[in-house]
Amino acid sequence: MSQTPSTVRPVLINGIWRDADFSSTFQATDPNTNEVLAATFPVSAWSDCDAALDAAVEAATALRRVSKAKIAEFLEAYADGIEAAKEALVDAAFAETGLARSPRLGDVELPRTSNQLRAAAAACRSGNWAAATIDTKAGIRSCFEAIGPVCVFGPNNFPFAFGSVSGGDFAAAIAAGNPVIGKANSSHPETTRLFAEIALRALKQAGLPEATVQLIYRTSHADGERLVSDPRVGATGYTGSRTAGLKLKAAADAVGKPIYLELSSVNPVVMTSTALQQRGDEIANDFVTSVLMGTGQFCTNPGMVLLQSGEPSERFIATVKERFASAPAGTLLSPAVSTSLSQSVKTLCGFGAELLTGGGEPESGRCAYANTLLRVSGSDFLSHPEGFQTEAFGNAALMVVADNLDELTESISRLEGNLTGCIYSAADGSDEAAYEKIAFELIPKVGRILNDKMPTGVAVSAAMNHGGPYPATGHPGFTAVGVPAALVRFAKLTSYDNVRESRLPELLRNEPPTEDTWRNVDGQWTQASV
Amino acid sequence: MSQTPSTVRPVLINGIWRDADFSSTFQATDPNTNEVLAATFPVSAWSDCDAALDAAVEAATALRRVSKAKIAEFLEAYADGIEAAKEALVDAAFAETGLARSPRLGDVELPRTSNQLRAAAAACRSGNWAAATIDTKAGIRSCFEAIGPVCVFGPNNFPFAFGSVSGGDFAAAIAAGNPVIGKANSSHPETTRLFAEIALRALKQAGLPEATVQLIYRTSHADGERLVSDPRVGATGYTGSRTAGLKLKAAADAVGKPIYLELSSVNPVVMTSTALQQRGDEIANDFVTSVLMGTGQFCTNPGMVLLQSGEPSERFIATVKERFASAPAGTLLSPAVSTSLSQSVKTLCGFGAELLTGGGEPESGRCAYANTLLRVSGSDFLSHPEGFQTEAFGNAALMVVADNLDELTESISRLEGNLTGCIYSAADGSDEAAYEKIAFELIPKVGRILNDKMPTGVAVSAAMNHGGPYPATGHPGFTAVGVPAALVRFAKLTSYDNVRESRLPELLRNEPPTEDTWRNVDGQWTQASV
Repeated sequence: MSQTPSTVRPVLINGIWRDADFSSTFQATDPNTNEVLAATFPVSAWSDCDAALDAAVEAATALRRVSKAKIAEFLEAYADGIEAAKEALVDAAFAETGLARSPRLGDVELPRTSNQLRAAAAACRSGNWAAATIDTKAGIRSCFEAIGPVCVFGPNNFPFAFGSVSGGDFAAAIAAGNPVIGKANSSHPETTRLFAEIALRALKQAGLPEATVQLIYRTSHADGERLVSDPRVGATGYTGSRTAGLKLKAAADAVGKPIYLELSSVNPVVMTSTALQQRGDEIANDFVTSVLMGTGQFCTNPGMVLLQSGEPSERFIATVKERFASAPAGTLLSPAVSTSLSQSVKTLCGFGAELLTGGGEPESGRCAYANTLLRVSGSDFLSHPEGFQTEAFGNAALMVVADNLDELTESISRLEGNLTGCIYSAADGSDEAAYEKIAFELIPKVGRILNDKMPTGVAVSAAMNHGGPYPATGHPGFTAVGVPAALVRFAKLTSYDNVRESRLPELLRNEPPTEDTWRNVDGQWTQASV
Repeated sequence: MSQTPSTVRPVLINGIWRDADFSSTFQATDPNTNEVLAATFPVSAWSDCDAALDAAVEAATALRRVSKAKIAEFLEAYADGIEAAKEALVDAAFAETGLARSPRLGDVELPRTSNQLRAAAAACRSGNWAAATIDTKAGIRSCFEAIGPVCVFGPNNFPFAFGSVSGGDFAAAIAAGNPVIGKANSSHPETTRLFAEIALRALKQAGLPEATVQLIYRTSHADGERLVSDPRVGATGYTGSRTAGLKLKAAADAVGKPIYLELSSVNPVVMTSTALQQRGDEIANDFVTSVLMGTGQFCTNPGMVLLQSGEPSERFIATVKERFASAPAGTLLSPAVSTSLSQSVKTLCGFGAELLTGGGEPESGRCAYANTLLRVSGSDFLSHPEGFQTEAFGNAALMVVADNLDELTESISRLEGNLTGCIYSAADGSDEAAYEKIAFELIPKVGRILNDKMPTGVAVSAAMNHGGPYPATGHPGFTAVGVPAALVRFAKLTSYDNVRESRLPELLRNEPPTEDTWRNVDGQWTQASV
């Protein structure tokens, strides 16, 4: 094991903050100043992953004997702990991500995070996520159950709500009964470390196995692939770049390990000419607000607008261009994000997109890039549909201007899978035929279809689908947001055939575990006992 | 296109029985006589797949505009047609598979097949498979919807109930709203052809697109991989050998196409010493009946027994050995099955299994192999756990005799994923501690856990899981049997956010589509309107 200077942050393995085994380190950057932050983090060798996996297997075994109520208590204690540590968390995340302290970090993302944990606790307690199904005649009962240790790779853009040891995947995996090995996002390791500290305290308070939450900051790519395909792992949740995600997917797929990925999405917004004619300024305002909010760094940022040529579209584009040009460019999350954004814009221009405003090189002195608007004709789009779907993650958008409705729908038919798709149409329903044509092409391409609304907000709702066809995610049947549906990803289906009642899991016994528990008994949903 | 002699069976593409494009042909074998059957079938070139995919895309588009009731009518008309054609289907399947005309083919598998289609029709009509979820406050509604053209590769062992254009995957894919491209199993192409004829008539009767059901008999392996990864495909269902299935999985995974596989399973049965002491003869009878029924050619055939050394186990093994030796060997499905069984037995012996009875070479003159019982000690098993899990598909089983309970549970912990796992324990609960230890290890390894019962029967129940952890299947969260759950495999989740009510799919409008429809509205399951 390499020598560990005390200035390098320890990793959390099996309930102990211990020196990592590492041969290199990394530091995060303050995107507001481009200054490298003081805290130094290890790039763990495989031995750290190996130790975490061993501890996770033990925790997974122990968790199977723990009551759901106890797991729920942990999630609630953790939510309380997060709220109590608000100031420190907001400070750390502000320094590492440049996201506004308020309202964004402190008043939006933090409450969302603690509320997600509480919603997961409620689902854990009632078992309502687990699709309990009882066939009294056949003597068979089934439900979803914990799948085993879950690895979570969190993204850069939501240090709290999608954090590796605090966010949606984490909450879902724990509520389904699994321990989590978090791999911090390299752009906000200190924030992630603070969460892990709070989680460990909550684990102790609730009396859960201390290896239920573990944290490693970074590994080599090869070790990441080894981690998600290790026999000890149950499943993996990943949100991040397409390139890195697809490598992890290949490794996990090869050994039959479920992996849930959120990779990339341009989130097309289609606007009918009538909608733009009737309320173009209002829509332009919606759009500009949505693209520039958070400097466009949302998974569901509307990066592509598809519209038909004509006066209303030209007016809309001109308005957006003017607003983009006059608005100050927000801070981006990290130097990697500004570099990547600049490269994506160059790629789009290389395919023939016209630069309406912005472009150029990233700012020096902070992580930022000019608000950028690009334009391409429908026929040019159709000549390189894949190239023009290059995701420009950040404050940039591409206008695809089709000659007519047929070219518009043809362009939509060439879209890859996306998380969301929006359609703005006439409020009075006067262009319903156009809506139908557009929606018919768009719906198969997206996980969530919206009317007259930008996609940036992702409500925590049981009906939410934060997912979509490949390559937006790895499988079109799962959502990463929305308790209880998100929990099913980290579970296996188990059928109990002729199993004596005393041996059944609590959820499948004759008496339901809570008054809130819904089960499907002989084809009917009921809260009653069998 | 190659010349097609009229003696080669045509393929069914876009509603027309047309000459295949092929450069080689194949014929099935009558396993009762080893005689090659007269009917000759084409090995299709890619152009046949290509044409089927184009037609399937058009059918998928058309099906999205068709009412669920109409799709249900097709499934019901098809079920009626199958029952009317019972004699011809049973004759064809008997000639191609050697399975008994009665009760197996005509009185068990055929009614199961038509009933499955009717159950799928009911699920299609009510939408109860689609997890309709309505959040009235957030204005978001979600459900599962058709995923696009589905390829179905059926297995050799259920020519009706798992047939490519008649079985469980087929029924699930159609009821979810998708067209199916069936790839016949090469051991029963004529049977599959007859089903496709009946299906085509039912499609015409119900007025569905005629490309809703298409049939190709065989392709090269390369074209099979190209088929499941083609951009026009929505998903694939495959049941068959692990080798072929894993190649298809790799091809589909690489492009993010969902593929559901049922690959192999030894279906471990664990017996406590007390259970064998109390009712060893009864259990031996259960076991022998289960292994020899259908000549052991069930996905859930109990191919491995784990028990503890001692007098009750020795008596049990002796009884089974005697019964195996004295029972006539049944007919196997095809020459490939008898060859493969003989090879698997050699492989197991090569690892050190002791041959108690059977073994040797396949019979000549028909497809058959001696009833075979093998034995290995727990410690030998633990020295090559993977090798001893070689699936010997057919009338063979391996007894793993552990020295004690710890070695028994250690052996269980080394099992791969399986469809089923059974535990026989004391009827009076006197060995509950042993049961608990065994079950704790076994449950994570299996899709279905059974008590005091052999796994061979797979009831069509909403609580059934005919699935399990890899490599039994490709994903532990899905079942291939059990309407409505099986349908979700062939669907994408779509969330409708702020979508005007008239634009919503029928299932998500305020008024439910049928009186039987269950939806989750604001967290409560209800059949009422919103």
